[in-house]
Amino acid sequence: MNKIITVSREFGSGGREFGRRLADVLGIEYYDKEIVTEISKHTSLSENYVKQIIDHKPHNLYPITIGRSILYVENPDFQHAQSIYTAQREIIRDLAGKSDCVIVGRCADYILQDMNPVRIFVYADMGSRIRRCMERLSEDEHFTEKEMTQRIKSIDRDRSKYYEYYTGLKWGNRLNYDLCINTTNMVIKDVVPTFAKLFE
Amino acid sequence: MNKIITVSREFGSGGREFGRRLADVLGIEYYDKEIVTEISKHTSLSENYVKQIIDHKPHNLYPITIGRSILYVENPDFQHAQSIYTAQREIIRDLAGKSDCVIVGRCADYILQDMNPVRIFVYADMGSRIRRCMERLSEDEHFTEKEMTQRIKSIDRDRSKYYEYYTGLKWGNRLNYDLCINTTNMVIKDVVPTFAKLFE
Repeated sequence: MNKIITVSREFGSGGREFGRRLADVLGIEYYDKEIVTEISKHTSLSENYVKQIIDHKPHNLYPITIGRSILYVENPDFQHAQSIYTAQREIIRDLAGKSDCVIVGRCADYILQDMNPVRIFVYADMGSRIRRCMERLSEDEHFTEKEMTQRIKSIDRDRSKYYEYYTGLKWGNRLNYDLCINTTNMVIKDVVPTFAKLFE
Repeated sequence: MNKIITVSREFGSGGREFGRRLADVLGIEYYDKEIVTEISKHTSLSENYVKQIIDHKPHNLYPITIGRSILYVENPDFQHAQSIYTAQREIIRDLAGKSDCVIVGRCADYILQDMNPVRIFVYADMGSRIRRCMERLSEDEHFTEKEMTQRIKSIDRDRSKYYEYYTGLKWGNRLNYDLCINTTNMVIKDVVPTFAKLFE
């Protein structure tokens, strides 16, 4: 069976960088945005739309019952979200079946549970997440510390809701992961080669 | 500064074995029950009494106010618990200052925070914790699965209260640890040599 590593992460914890560098050091495939491109191909929806639906809060796409009427049939976003999740599931299973890989986000830990992935959760304290996010801003982006805190919390809330909606499990609950790594005091590029030894 | 690794653990997760084997592989000191012996020497209290106080719920040792009377002065256990914690704190700092080491439990992650310990939390799902505890029982000990579950929960509750009482922090909160390791699907003696590479 292939060596599969899934990385879930708090926004701003450097989880994506951790996953990318880990794949680099191990010399195995890395999947992240590539999955969106593949979903777009499979569903004939634009990459931007797919990304928007994935990043959206799925709880807002629930069918709504008013009196005896169920309104979700009138909401194409809800139906697209279901198609996108189904396509994503198939693509992730397909990629994981092909070769050793690191997959970031997208409920891959749950989707691939029968393939025994090593499930990593990357997290950090709020201060270091704010610093990391501020460093990544482009020149024309401006956030106060308070705004950035709100942004981080909002994105984490969306990730949490997305994960819980599709898996029925609590996002970030340590029992859903094999290893939880706190990057607060770590320089990711320095520590990844050492962590990679766990998976060689 | 010495290399200090602290191991906090859920009861039955194999955290103590993890710590002991880690110290073995790294060839560094290991402190666990040795600390109780040292406290006993420092406080002139018997080892059994010290252990009993440490394992006891400190919240039961709070001073009690009835009307205008405060009863804690009449409770030697409460005063002993304070002396034991103070002695333990000094001993742990002393040991950590002497050489590289692994220290299991006893709020060492908090007590040594200014010495930059690597703080590990070892956990596992309830099923594997029950199995591990059952395997460790001596011939004359008999527990049903339900009794063992209650025992595990009760010991964890005590550890949690002890930790929160002395540190003001939430036991098991991932932000208090650098690395959280789920031993559910791990054979500890097989994985420790690989984990040890993180700390070489």
